[in-house]
Amino acid sequence: MVDDYPSRIDTSAGLMPRLDPVLHDPRGTDTPGPLTPEQLASFERDGFVVLDGAFSDGEMDACMRELEAFGRDPARRARPETIVEPESDSVRSVFAVHRDSEVFSDLATDPRIADVARQILGSDAYVHQSRVNLKPAMTGKEFFWHSDFETWHVEDGMPRMRAVSASVAMTDNTEFNGPLMLVPGSHKWYVTTVGETPERHYETSLRRQEIGVPDEESLRRLVDEGGIVAPKAQRGAVIFFDCNTMHASGVNLSPYPRSNAFFVFNSVENLVVDPFSGQEPRPEHIASRQRIEPLG
Amino acid sequence: MVDDYPSRIDTSAGLMPRLDPVLHDPRGTDTPGPLTPEQLASFERDGFVVLDGAFSDGEMDACMRELEAFGRDPARRARPETIVEPESDSVRSVFAVHRDSEVFSDLATDPRIADVARQILGSDAYVHQSRVNLKPAMTGKEFFWHSDFETWHVEDGMPRMRAVSASVAMTDNTEFNGPLMLVPGSHKWYVTTVGETPERHYETSLRRQEIGVPDEESLRRLVDEGGIVAPKAQRGAVIFFDCNTMHASGVNLSPYPRSNAFFVFNSVENLVVDPFSGQEPRPEHIASRQRIEPLG
Repeated sequence: MVDDYPSRIDTSAGLMPRLDPVLHDPRGTDTPGPLTPEQLASFERDGFVVLDGAFSDGEMDACMRELEAFGRDPARRARPETIVEPESDSVRSVFAVHRDSEVFSDLATDPRIADVARQILGSDAYVHQSRVNLKPAMTGKEFFWHSDFETWHVEDGMPRMRAVSASVAMTDNTEFNGPLMLVPGSHKWYVTTVGETPERHYETSLRRQEIGVPDEESLRRLVDEGGIVAPKAQRGAVIFFDCNTMHASGVNLSPYPRSNAFFVFNSVENLVVDPFSGQEPRPEHIASRQRIEPLG
Repeated sequence: MVDDYPSRIDTSAGLMPRLDPVLHDPRGTDTPGPLTPEQLASFERDGFVVLDGAFSDGEMDACMRELEAFGRDPARRARPETIVEPESDSVRSVFAVHRDSEVFSDLATDPRIADVARQILGSDAYVHQSRVNLKPAMTGKEFFWHSDFETWHVEDGMPRMRAVSASVAMTDNTEFNGPLMLVPGSHKWYVTTVGETPERHYETSLRRQEIGVPDEESLRRLVDEGGIVAPKAQRGAVIFFDCNTMHASGVNLSPYPRSNAFFVFNSVENLVVDPFSGQEPRPEHIASRQRIEPLG
């Protein structure tokens, strides 16, 4: 397959325009859904949209209890699905929660999430990746700017920009606990990066990414144009953002932990192929390849 | 001299009430100044006050030019006054700028700063420490919560809580460039910390402090009570904060650098004695000991 979004190949970084539409069924002819025309337009323009109050406190309590049960289970902590912080032993992420937990499987397929994903993607969809992210109180580290698509394309073989992420706030996002930060409009540009992908890159990149990160010049151009936004999503809110929206998160210097559940929906018309890096695909728990189950 | 604020001695951390007043001449009988009674009351209650628009763009331009000249001077970069980032070669702080630069000496003694310091301290004052802090674009690291007084007491021999810091915003402080974060009301408690002070602790602590930092439990109690505030001080603003106000700053993930000039004023009635750690004092460029020049 032709590589329409080459990256980590040239010796210089750069910006190229996005080749795919942001909304694949903008009039909702085939995939009507809960987003209003205004919300769809805002997603198209900014690359993200926030749905406040999508889930109740009781629903978020159930998710937090499930997550705490994960942390107490030594067998689960030892599995490759569990990623720990670089400088401590705290759990940073648990992958494939939609596969291994009924609570999170129900959350991923809940119409309040799944119908929005289908509406944006203009087709049926499946979970390409899922995880819960924890940013521990006072020690949670930053995650540098990146486009998820760049990695999913190069390392997972996702051909086109036709995937959307849903981040469910299991705790309040505040200015001080390392909330998701986004660059509005950045999804309309593809930042190619320099540096060859190391073998088994995912073993380190999920803790602290150093390859596949944008250069300062490109990032500055994007921020000069669109600024930075950190939605103060309250517990129960969902932030949907395009696979190519530039995002990051800061340190958690508050004395309270921050947690969210994260689901990536890929269009069934955009199934992954061999990685464009030419390397071995990442494991199934990081990028679904065998298990393609349309939301239905 | 009796150590009224013992710290780094016990094996457990804890909170004790502050023994000194916050304002030493609350009615302004001896040291009238520019702060209104409302501003003084707010400083007394919160441990800080922000004066917007104290300096003009032209004045801040002059400071920035001086700072850039420092960075271009290899001899100055090699001096112990210059502190570089832990993981890069960027300049993080330059100490003793009030001594080595006319521009910053003029800033320290400007009545818009010096008269406020005297008004709060209720006496004449001198510069205990000065520095410019730089947080480079996208790579500027966080600085964990701490009370300056804890270090100045233990390592510099500052007897009482009768000092005030002035942070002059040479660039805008935004949500995304690692602004100063403060815990309102924290100045009324002294958090004793555990762990012995290593010899020549300042050589590492000025980059990343690990001894003399508060425990999570005490910090959580202070934040539960007072919350966290990060004033979005525009360029030219000055944040005055008490020597014992708990503060921190996050990473700079924005593509723009952040810089401020920082002056610590100590009361002439609170001259430093031998360090309460029993160790050698820190160098003169970090804590004035020989050079005590009252503002006048």
